[in-house]
Amino acid sequence: MSWLDEVPWNGDGLIAAVAQDASTGRVLTVAWMNRGALEETVRTKQAVYWSRSRKRLWRKGEESGHVQNVRELRLDCDADAVLLSVEQVGGIACHTGRQSCFFRKLENGRWVTTDPVLKDPADIYKKK
Amino acid sequence: MSWLDEVPWNGDGLIAAVAQDASTGRVLTVAWMNRGALEETVRTKQAVYWSRSRKRLWRKGEESGHVQNVRELRLDCDADAVLLSVEQVGGIACHTGRQSCFFRKLENGRWVTTDPVLKDPADIYKKK
Repeated sequence: MSWLDEVPWNGDGLIAAVAQDASTGRVLTVAWMNRGALEETVRTKQAVYWSRSRKRLWRKGEESGHVQNVRELRLDCDADAVLLSVEQVGGIACHTGRQSCFFRKLENGRWVTTDPVLKDPADIYKKK
Repeated sequence: MSWLDEVPWNGDGLIAAVAQDASTGRVLTVAWMNRGALEETVRTKQAVYWSRSRKRLWRKGEESGHVQNVRELRLDCDADAVLLSVEQVGGIACHTGRQSCFFRKLENGRWVTTDPVLKDPADIYKKK
């Protein structure tokens, strides 16, 4: 049996994928993978997700250059998730130009943006 | 508008919730929250999830005592996830008696258990 068969894919054939920065420990992104995305991630050692909105494989960094090089892959006990330890190329994981997608923090009943924009998205995605 | 209204609940009214150990940075669990779970989490400062299998609120640690005290709550840009920075009481997040639910690592095409069982689940859940 393949290691891919042991992954508890949900009804849509997906699993949640958490990417954590290998050096800082910061959680960068949460996205989704289907079987093809996970297989390609392991084969190429670069994070590949399944874009639910675009309904196609999303090779992280394909437009921005902000590739996630995968150092380690873990599977959890039963909550249907994989954990990727990654080296975040460019130091920017979020399409808003921030280090992490988790840049809003709850403070006194409000979501407050706590992280700076490191690079203008217009400069990141200028190929568009 | 309430901060709860700004959360991008999915079609089932849920959001993925990643719990990260505040001191070690280790990702402990990935679970789900509905609106009631997130509201109670913030109000009580202890992680409350929605159990999809049991279809009820799951107050983390209600049987095991392994409560997650929430220090900080973050929301991501668009991938439908919250990130909890927690103090893991007992140092055990997983129902298997391990520190983290991500105790299996992919090595040469196999999921290898890398983490020790810190406490026998039979001792953790002896009230059952």
